[in-house]
Amino acid sequence: MMRVGTMVPPLVGSIRRAAFFCRSAMEPGGGVAMVQGASRGIGLEFVRQLLEKKEKGQVIATCRDPSRASFLQELKGKYTERLDILPLDVTDESSIKASTKSINERYGSLNLLINASGVLSIPGVLQPETTLNKVEKSSLMFAYEVNAAGPTLVIKHMWPLLKLGGQTASERKFSIVANLSARVSSIGDNGLGGWHSYRSSKTALNQLTKNISLEFARRKDPIVCILLHPGTVDTDLSKPFQRGVPEGKLFTPEFSVGKLLAVIEGTEASDNGKFFAWDGQQIPW
Amino acid sequence: MMRVGTMVPPLVGSIRRAAFFCRSAMEPGGGVAMVQGASRGIGLEFVRQLLEKKEKGQVIATCRDPSRASFLQELKGKYTERLDILPLDVTDESSIKASTKSINERYGSLNLLINASGVLSIPGVLQPETTLNKVEKSSLMFAYEVNAAGPTLVIKHMWPLLKLGGQTASERKFSIVANLSARVSSIGDNGLGGWHSYRSSKTALNQLTKNISLEFARRKDPIVCILLHPGTVDTDLSKPFQRGVPEGKLFTPEFSVGKLLAVIEGTEASDNGKFFAWDGQQIPW
Ligand SMILES: NC(=O)c1ccc[n+]([C@@H]2O[C@H](COP(=O)([O-])OP(=O)(O)OC[C@H]3O[C@@H](n4cnc5c(N)ncnc54)[C@H](OP(=O)(O)O)[C@@H]3O)[C@@H](O)[C@H]2O)c1
Ligand SMILES: NC(=O)c1ccc[n+]([C@@H]2O[C@H](COP(=O)([O-])OP(=O)(O)OC[C@H]3O[C@@H](n4cnc5c(N)ncnc54)[C@H](OP(=O)(O)O)[C@@H]3O)[C@@H](O)[C@H]2O)c1
Repeated sequence: MMRVGTMVPPLVGSIRRAAFFCRSAMEPGGGVAMVQGASRGIGLEFVRQLLEKKEKGQVIATCRDPSRASFLQELKGKYTERLDILPLDVTDESSIKASTKSINERYGSLNLLINASGVLSIPGVLQPETTLNKVEKSSLMFAYEVNAAGPTLVIKHMWPLLKLGGQTASERKFSIVANLSARVSSIGDNGLGGWHSYRSSKTALNQLTKNISLEFARRKDPIVCILLHPGTVDTDLSKPFQRGVPEGKLFTPEFSVGKLLAVIEGTEASDNGKFFAWDGQQIPW
Repeated sequence: MMRVGTMVPPLVGSIRRAAFFCRSAMEPGGGVAMVQGASRGIGLEFVRQLLEKKEKGQVIATCRDPSRASFLQELKGKYTERLDILPLDVTDESSIKASTKSINERYGSLNLLINASGVLSIPGVLQPETTLNKVEKSSLMFAYEVNAAGPTLVIKHMWPLLKLGGQTASERKFSIVANLSARVSSIGDNGLGGWHSYRSSKTALNQLTKNISLEFARRKDPIVCILLHPGTVDTDLSKPFQRGVPEGKLFTPEFSVGKLLAVIEGTEASDNGKFFAWDGQQIPW
């Protein structure tokens, strides 16, 4: 997959330094992890912990606008060689393709893909509906585009890289796709209603992830897909809804991501297509 | 809700004959049923059986283009007084609003709403994907628009009519919303993969229906929402995929709709938010 000597397009926030890179996936203890939706919140914290808690391994952080992702740029200053920042908007398939091309040319494979991007509320665009009367078609469509179609298209394009990452991995025998879902996506567990656009988009993501996991298994591609619920985490996304959260149930990003990384690291082949909470408990569909 | 003496917009395929109509929901044995997506297949068969198997009751059949719905027009010739045909495209909210207005002015309430519309494949627009490689964003979005957002918006607008239908019903103590889903929407039951756009749109419909059922229950609105799987039924939708269907497992529309009407008629308040197959068996999420 890696074509040595071919043009390497410049990566945002990094100079061309192809000589430093070989296929990290083949290095023991190394590996290439991609965190999609890494400008803020849980995605950003994944990037931080992948860099700080581990001694080795490349991290690719993607976000809509790298120039405005100041926390990522700060990390880049500290982890110049291990972190790359690429522009990727899940609603713009050409940006997904461009990232795939860059990652392919620079690394040739992926060992871990975390889809952390997600939207719950954007004033005037997407509202977390409290009643059916407030459900707007544009909100339903927008949430589905970002939360369900988006990660699916990212996996579609990264598939060959993930396959190669799984085949060449020395530590695990497979690569991992972890999609950030949410407990409210569970139909069986739905006791409250509301948030129609968000809930249904994440429920659809669950089905899409399960669907993809079945194809990977059928083809014997060494890729395991899981869905994750991070708990209620203190980020911009949850800010407007934190009042009702019981004492001790609002997690810091540090705590949640620490737990989620433990779930990811503990992933076994038999977990393919399953939905786990931060504490490793399986969530019903 | 019914404003006697107000302007009644002409219904397609019928002349203005307001004098014939009183609030049928209040008549014993009567009732007003709406079948949305009634031009062909399962929806059309619902209309036929509601007219032929029952002696009383009004039926409103909606479809995208009444002038081209020849089977409906044929039924209209036979059941002039009991059948009304209205134009409704679930992707065009203004047509949903216009139908709501017509039904409100003519009947004032609804006892049964069957959302039968649905799409699985349209060459060049929506493909039943056999692999992730073939998943197109436009297909994902289109299937979600028709199969998930569409029925949701229909329920949103018909809500006041359904509420009144439930309150004034003499036979049942509630009105019923029945959404046509499909067994392939079940995540728990998904063993094959594929059909990403269709599957995920119907899974989202399941969550949306559950969500709506919870709000109706919380408000004590006398409306029960259920999801239905018709089996594999010999219609235009299933035509391209009938080869693999085992002997005896391809149902006629008559058989399937007969069974589904029995499920609908047997609905109890405790069934709110549940997903049933044609044989009354509950389907896991
Ligand atoms: N926080 C919680 O309590 C909670 C609970 C359950 C599940 N989750 C899920 O966890 C994930 C992370 O949430 P969070 O709390 O970290 O949210 P957040 O702080 O609001 O961050 C959301 C991230 O998604 C990115 N994003 C939004 N639209 C995007 C697009 N079109 N393309 C690419 N990236 C896009 C944002 O980038 P920009 O900076 O460019 O906007 C941002 O990096 C989400 O999927 C969320 O649904 C969170
Ligand atoms: N047949 C099966 O084996 C099967 C299995 C499981 C579930 N289902 C579900 O059962 C339902 C009925 O399916 P079917 O087999 O009867 O399909 P069908 O014969 O293809 O009929 C589909 C119906 O949906 C209508 N429709 C399509 N797009 C619409 C829109 N934008 N607005 C309003 N109506 C629209 C069509 O109207 P036009 O004539 O205007 O196109 C047609 O009346 C669907 O929801 C389907 O997903 C069917």
